Amino acid sequence: MEPAALPRKLGEAIRAKRQSLQLSQEEFADHISMHRAYYSAIERGERNMTLSTLARVCNGLGVQPSKLMSDAGM
Amino acid sequence: MEPAALPRKLGEAIRAKRQSLQLSQEEFADHISMHRAYYSAIERGERNMTLSTLARVCNGLGVQPSKLMSDAGM
Repeated sequence: MEPAALPRKLGEAIRAKRQSLQLSQEEFADHISMHRAYYSAIERGERNMTLSTLARVCNGLGVQPSKLMSDAGM
Repeated sequence: MEPAALPRKLGEAIRAKRQSLQLSQEEFADHISMHRAYYSAIERGERNMTLSTLARVCNGLGVQPSKLMSDAGM
Protein backbone atom coordinates (compact mmCIF):
# COMPACT_ATOMS: atom_id res chain seq x y z
CA MET A 1 0.00 0.00 0.00
CA GLU A 2 1.21 3.46 -0.90
CA PRO A 3 0.92 5.37 2.43
CA ALA A 4 -0.56 8.45 0.72
CA ALA A 5 -3.40 6.29 -0.59
CA LEU A 6 -4.89 5.78 2.86
CA PRO A 7 -6.02 9.38 3.53
CA ARG A 8 -7.38 9.67 -0.01
CA LYS A 9 -9.35 6.43 0.00
CA LEU A 10 -10.62 7.02 3.52
CA GLY A 11 -11.68 10.54 2.58
CA GLU A 12 -13.75 9.14 -0.27
CA ALA A 13 -15.39 6.57 2.01
CA ILE A 14 -16.11 9.25 4.64
CA ARG A 15 -17.71 11.49 2.02
CA ALA A 16 -19.90 8.65 0.71
CA LYS A 17 -21.07 7.71 4.20
CA ARG A 18 -21.76 11.34 5.15
CA GLN A 19 -23.76 11.83 1.94
CA SER A 20 -25.76 8.66 2.67
CA LEU A 21 -26.83 10.36 5.91
CA GLN A 22 -28.17 13.32 3.89
CA LEU A 23 -25.92 15.75 5.74
CA SER A 24 -23.96 18.58 4.17
CA GLN A 25 -20.24 18.89 4.97
CA GLU A 26 -21.07 21.92 7.10
CA GLU A 27 -23.81 20.16 9.04
CA PHE A 28 -21.65 17.15 9.72
CA ALA A 29 -18.57 19.17 10.71
CA ASP A 30 -20.72 21.14 13.15
CA HIS A 31 -22.20 17.89 14.48
CA ILE A 32 -18.75 16.58 15.44
CA SER A 33 -17.50 20.03 16.51
CA MET A 34 -14.81 20.14 13.85
CA HIS A 35 -13.68 23.14 11.86
CA ARG A 36 -15.47 23.01 8.51
CA ALA A 37 -12.37 23.66 6.43
CA TYR A 38 -10.49 20.92 8.24
CA TYR A 39 -13.31 18.43 7.73
CA SER A 40 -13.55 19.35 4.06
CA ALA A 41 -9.82 18.67 3.66
CA ILE A 42 -10.27 15.26 5.30
CA GLU A 43 -12.85 14.31 2.67
CA ARG A 44 -10.44 15.42 -0.04
CA GLY A 45 -7.71 13.21 1.45
CA GLU A 46 -5.55 16.22 2.24
CA ARG A 47 -5.18 15.62 5.96
CA ASN A 48 -3.01 12.97 7.57
CA MET A 49 -5.36 12.68 10.52
CA THR A 50 -4.64 10.99 13.81
CA LEU A 51 -6.44 8.00 15.28
CA SER A 52 -8.38 10.21 17.67
CA THR A 53 -9.64 12.35 14.78
CA LEU A 54 -10.56 9.19 12.89
CA ALA A 55 -12.49 8.02 15.96
CA ARG A 56 -14.38 11.34 16.13
CA VAL A 57 -15.37 11.06 12.48
CA CYS A 58 -16.40 7.41 12.86
CA ASN A 59 -18.45 8.17 15.93
CA GLY A 60 -20.21 10.97 14.10
CA LEU A 61 -20.95 8.78 11.11
CA GLY A 62 -22.03 5.87 13.31
CA VAL A 63 -19.63 3.50 11.59
CA GLN A 64 -16.85 1.33 12.96
CA PRO A 65 -13.28 2.12 11.85
CA SER A 66 -12.91 -1.41 10.45
CA LYS A 67 -16.03 -0.93 8.33
CA LEU A 68 -14.89 2.47 7.07
CA MET A 69 -11.46 1.05 6.17
CA SER A 70 -13.16 -1.84 4.43
CA ASP A 71 -15.46 0.53 2.51
CA ALA A 72 -12.32 2.40 1.48
CA GLY A 73 -10.83 -0.82 0.15
CA MET A 74 -7.89 -0.47 2.51
CA MET B 1 -16.50 4.41 20.94
CA GLU B 2 -14.30 6.21 23.45
CA PRO B 3 -11.66 7.89 21.19
CA ALA B 4 -8.80 6.91 23.54
CA ALA B 5 -9.77 3.26 23.08
CA LEU B 6 -8.66 3.19 19.46
CA PRO B 7 -4.89 3.61 20.03
CA ARG B 8 -4.98 1.12 22.89
CA LYS B 9 -6.91 -1.59 21.08
CA LEU B 10 -4.91 -1.08 17.90
CA GLY B 11 -1.67 -1.29 19.84
CA GLU B 12 -2.72 -4.64 21.25
CA ALA B 13 -3.61 -5.94 17.78
CA ILE B 14 -0.31 -4.67 16.36
CA ARG B 15 1.62 -6.39 19.14
CA ALA B 16 -0.21 -9.70 18.57
CA LYS B 17 0.41 -9.58 14.83
CA ARG B 18 4.09 -8.67 15.29
CA GLN B 19 4.53 -11.53 17.75
CA SER B 20 2.88 -13.94 15.32
CA LEU B 21 5.65 -13.03 12.88
CA GLN B 22 8.25 -14.08 15.48
CA LEU B 23 9.85 -10.64 15.43
CA SER B 24 11.01 -8.69 18.45
CA GLN B 25 9.87 -5.07 18.86
CA GLU B 26 13.40 -3.98 18.00
CA GLU B 27 13.60 -6.11 14.86
CA PHE B 28 10.24 -4.92 13.63
CA ALA B 29 10.91 -1.24 14.38
CA ASP B 30 14.17 -1.49 12.46
CA HIS B 31 12.38 -3.24 9.60
CA ILE B 32 10.00 -0.31 9.14
CA SER B 33 12.70 2.28 9.90
CA MET B 34 10.92 3.56 12.99
CA HIS B 35 12.48 4.69 16.24
CA ARG B 36 12.28 1.75 18.66
CA ALA B 37 10.92 3.79 21.56
CA TYR B 38 8.23 5.27 19.36
CA TYR B 39 7.20 1.86 18.06
CA SER B 40 7.11 0.47 21.59
CA ALA B 41 4.80 3.32 22.64
CA ILE B 42 2.48 2.51 19.72
CA GLU B 43 2.10 -1.07 20.97
CA ARG B 44 1.29 0.27 24.43
CA GLY B 45 -1.40 2.52 22.94
CA GLU B 46 0.44 5.64 24.02
CA ARG B 47 0.73 7.26 20.61
CA ASN B 48 -2.05 8.94 18.71
CA MET B 49 -0.50 8.00 15.39
CA THR B 50 -1.40 9.43 12.01
CA LEU B 51 -2.81 7.53 9.05
CA SER B 52 0.57 7.51 7.34
CA THR B 53 2.20 5.93 10.40
CA LEU B 54 -0.60 3.39 10.55
CA ALA B 55 0.03 2.60 6.88
CA ARG B 56 3.76 2.08 7.57
CA VAL B 57 2.99 -0.33 10.40
CA CYS B 58 0.39 -2.20 8.33
CA ASN B 59 2.76 -2.50 5.40
CA GLY B 60 5.46 -3.88 7.67
CA LEU B 61 3.10 -6.40 9.23
CA GLY B 62 1.65 -7.37 5.84
CA VAL B 63 -1.88 -6.74 7.03
CA GLN B 64 -4.62 -4.48 5.68
CA PRO B 65 -5.77 -1.59 7.91
CA SER B 66 -9.34 -2.95 7.81
CA LYS B 67 -8.13 -6.33 9.07
CA LEU B 68 -6.04 -4.78 11.82
CA MET B 69 -9.00 -2.64 12.95
CA SER B 70 -11.20 -5.70 12.88
CA ASP B 71 -8.65 -7.70 14.91
CA ALA B 72 -8.68 -4.82 17.39
CA GLY B 73 -12.47 -5.09 17.65
CA MET B 74 -12.83 -1.50 16.49
